[in-house]
Amino acid sequence: MGTRVGELVERLGGQLVGDANLEVSGIAPLAEADASHMSFLSNSKFRAQAAASGAAALIVSPADDAFVAAGFHGARIVTHNPYAYFARAAQFFAALGEVAPAPGVDASAVVAPSALVDPGAHIGPHVSVGAGAVIKAGAVVDAGCVIGPDAVIGEHTHLFANVTFHARCQIGARGIIHSGAVIGTDGFGFANEGGVYIKIPQTGRVMIGDDVDIGANTTIDRGALADTVIEDGVKLDNQIQIGHNCRIGAHTAMAGCVGVAGSAIIGKYCTFGGAAMVLGHLTIADRVHISSGSMVSRSIREAGQYTGFYPLAKNAEWEKTAAIVRNLDAMRDKIRALEKTIKTLTDPK
Amino acid sequence: MGTRVGELVERLGGQLVGDANLEVSGIAPLAEADASHMSFLSNSKFRAQAAASGAAALIVSPADDAFVAAGFHGARIVTHNPYAYFARAAQFFAALGEVAPAPGVDASAVVAPSALVDPGAHIGPHVSVGAGAVIKAGAVVDAGCVIGPDAVIGEHTHLFANVTFHARCQIGARGIIHSGAVIGTDGFGFANEGGVYIKIPQTGRVMIGDDVDIGANTTIDRGALADTVIEDGVKLDNQIQIGHNCRIGAHTAMAGCVGVAGSAIIGKYCTFGGAAMVLGHLTIADRVHISSGSMVSRSIREAGQYTGFYPLAKNAEWEKTAAIVRNLDAMRDKIRALEKTIKTLTDPK
Amino acid sequence: MGTRVGELVERLGGQLVGDANLEVSGIAPLAEADASHMSFLSNSKFRAQAAASGAAALIVSPADDAFVAAGFHGARIVTHNPYAYFARAAQFFAALGEVAPAPGVDASAVVAPSALVDPGAHIGPHVSVGAGAVIKAGAVVDAGCVIGPDAVIGEHTHLFANVTFHARCQIGARGIIHSGAVIGTDGFGFANEGGVYIKIPQTGRVMIGDDVDIGANTTIDRGALADTVIEDGVKLDNQIQIGHNCRIGAHTAMAGCVGVAGSAIIGKYCTFGGAAMVLGHLTIADRVHISSGSMVSRSIREAGQYTGFYPLAKNAEWEKTAAIVRNLDAMRDKIRALEKTIKTLTDPK
Repeated sequence: MGTRVGELVERLGGQLVGDANLEVSGIAPLAEADASHMSFLSNSKFRAQAAASGAAALIVSPADDAFVAAGFHGARIVTHNPYAYFARAAQFFAALGEVAPAPGVDASAVVAPSALVDPGAHIGPHVSVGAGAVIKAGAVVDAGCVIGPDAVIGEHTHLFANVTFHARCQIGARGIIHSGAVIGTDGFGFANEGGVYIKIPQTGRVMIGDDVDIGANTTIDRGALADTVIEDGVKLDNQIQIGHNCRIGAHTAMAGCVGVAGSAIIGKYCTFGGAAMVLGHLTIADRVHISSGSMVSRSIREAGQYTGFYPLAKNAEWEKTAAIVRNLDAMRDKIRALEKTIKTLTDPK
Repeated sequence: MGTRVGELVERLGGQLVGDANLEVSGIAPLAEADASHMSFLSNSKFRAQAAASGAAALIVSPADDAFVAAGFHGARIVTHNPYAYFARAAQFFAALGEVAPAPGVDASAVVAPSALVDPGAHIGPHVSVGAGAVIKAGAVVDAGCVIGPDAVIGEHTHLFANVTFHARCQIGARGIIHSGAVIGTDGFGFANEGGVYIKIPQTGRVMIGDDVDIGANTTIDRGALADTVIEDGVKLDNQIQIGHNCRIGAHTAMAGCVGVAGSAIIGKYCTFGGAAMVLGHLTIADRVHISSGSMVSRSIREAGQYTGFYPLAKNAEWEKTAAIVRNLDAMRDKIRALEKTIKTLTDPK
Repeated sequence: MGTRVGELVERLGGQLVGDANLEVSGIAPLAEADASHMSFLSNSKFRAQAAASGAAALIVSPADDAFVAAGFHGARIVTHNPYAYFARAAQFFAALGEVAPAPGVDASAVVAPSALVDPGAHIGPHVSVGAGAVIKAGAVVDAGCVIGPDAVIGEHTHLFANVTFHARCQIGARGIIHSGAVIGTDGFGFANEGGVYIKIPQTGRVMIGDDVDIGANTTIDRGALADTVIEDGVKLDNQIQIGHNCRIGAHTAMAGCVGVAGSAIIGKYCTFGGAAMVLGHLTIADRVHISSGSMVSRSIREAGQYTGFYPLAKNAEWEKTAAIVRNLDAMRDKIRALEKTIKTLTDPK
């Protein structure tokens, strides 16, 4: 349940300075690492702490290496992105301790005869797989999941317990869908006739690329006619709602509780803070960053950081400022009146 | 997998102008429709596009018909609400391609002996049905649903996979509950004694009318003593939370991520934009429309559109305006001081 | 299905004034209580209504007792916190009508041979219990729940249907987890390398104390390295999201749709209104109360009530005020200019 530092470098790269035969059992933060651990320095602010660390080995950037080397006595792995290296090393250590679920279909699962389940896939207890569905090699479908007819689960994609993945939707390779997520539920589409809503059938799909993570209890609507599309590398946290016919660009990340209304088109490499909301039919450019709790009510054509939430205050102070906000037009009118009066005073003509 | 235009008109009404024997396979948007499709014009802005459409048939309003007729060579169905007609026609086409789930109870389901499951209902794999529950004719209960004791599922109501429908709650006819929704969970009711919460049992029910749609992962609390009530025709999108003892008036629609706190009474024909929030014990009149992201913190007695969210800005601009908002009372005081000074200047008495 | 008033007082305490042999079948609000009910007065505002009540017995505070006694002819239970007494009495009556689920494991459940299920626990239909999991005496695990390997469910804790409780997480005694909740899903942790996200394994746990309630479809992330901690007596409503490595202090309560980002440390005896949001890595002191819909974007060191949401208005008025908010710095500049001009007028030197 550990490895040699040298083996790690052979797998993950980086330049090793020091003893390749040091044994490490895992990764720990700088403050907690001892002689059985590796640690990492991803923020130069903590250089002194890193130099004094008791870790067996340190992941460090070229810029910090000279400073750290002067004080640190263990091995160093020098690499340009220590945090990314840490993530990969942590994946390596986590895999050491993990027992991969055995391939095969649990006896309690109900799999339609026409479904194609790869012999290398794992289907857990009480799973249902609909007619014509395809579960590819290395996929893991945990207990209680429901896979609709003609759905496709890509290679090495992992559905945690109690996911619902509806008919005809598809996810690519190496994805993760966390528990309680619902992929491909009907979009919210109605015609109104005399106040009464008439349902518009939602016949599109959800098409999800490779390397996409979807959080617990997140919901993604199927398209009305065309498809809802989640591009490669998108990361969605828990309790996110994506409306029908949205497109989320590659490598965009959204924190928990974000909502995106229907037909919004969101660029690549964007980030959305928790509980940010996007109205429907908007277009958001690439590399747009929306702060938590902000409502996006118009399209954004230019990359950058955008924010819009009411600042928190002691309740008594908020009561005062909110009352003024309600009457800001009165305040504006007063200022205009003052300007007029002063104009008369200074320029009486 | 298609129909004659004439058959559609016989079923759905409207005035047919043109060849009743034209075959159409489905509905497509104006821009995509070809000779195998119907299309529809619901917004006069697109009259010219409709007139030039290659669709076999067009759904059109009396007001637009003369304009369209001058250019369009296919059949026309003239009707007062083309969008509602489109919804009904789309339902018709969707039903053509659909295989209704077979009546009967899947072998893996666990149904209490005292439950009454109509022979015309469908109970999917791994469903649990509690003692005394009633599942009416034509109801469809998909895989993994849990129906509590003495619950009632109305005729032709469809519960998608992994819905939890708790004890004694009821839903009427032709409803849809999407995956992951939880109906009849305990309301959030506690007494506080010295800082410690003591649970108040939640013994009411959730009573849901006919033609109600409930979105994926939406939660509706059972009443504390009296019932939580969802009236006929209400449409709730995904991830909505309805607190105990609320009443949602008929034909009200709520978009995703809306929250309604306990004992709120909401009128008929209201709409709520995504992530709108309603505090507890409020009353909202009929035909009130709340914009997305708005917090309703007082009762609303008058129909109309209401809004309250902080406008989005570039982060640097928001930093400036938010700092001013925090000190709006200081700004108000400055204006008052200016007014006073000017009064002294203009009226020195 | 009822009890003598005297028996209730023997169990729950309080000072009985009147006939101990009165039979009561349950509790009703003042306005609805008749001779078969108890009722309670927790707000002095309703003293007159209480005095005139037709209830068989009343729960009343010492301060209100003299007033009530003058008019009320039934029995009185005098106690310092009538609302807490009501909650306990309501629990007593609810338990009378309840059939406790039978101990034992449903035949359709899949329980790993190495799991330790106490013979006094109830495991419902289609439940999965992973290797090494421990389900203690009196625990109730309803239909469709999935319990991960090495998880621990404490004594008399109740998991409602379709809960997912992930590997190695623990909950103490007398807890309630409502349907659809997901405990111990991966936190949202990634390193970024050239725009692409690399997953950081989430190897911590969720550790939940005693007497904790967790609402329907609420999600709690497991820690990245250390644990996410929910202390004793915490009450979480529905659709709440708690990020990885958070700590929620004892007896803190959160209403529906609250979101707490990762590594936030929240004090004891706090309350959070619905849809309040807390950014990551913040610290919130004990006895802080956050209003509904407020975004907490900085640490709070001092107890008290805090608020921050944009006030609701008719849409036309909001359009006006929001436009001014967007340009508040222009308004501030105008005021400064006015001040300068006036300074010149009043002090021309």
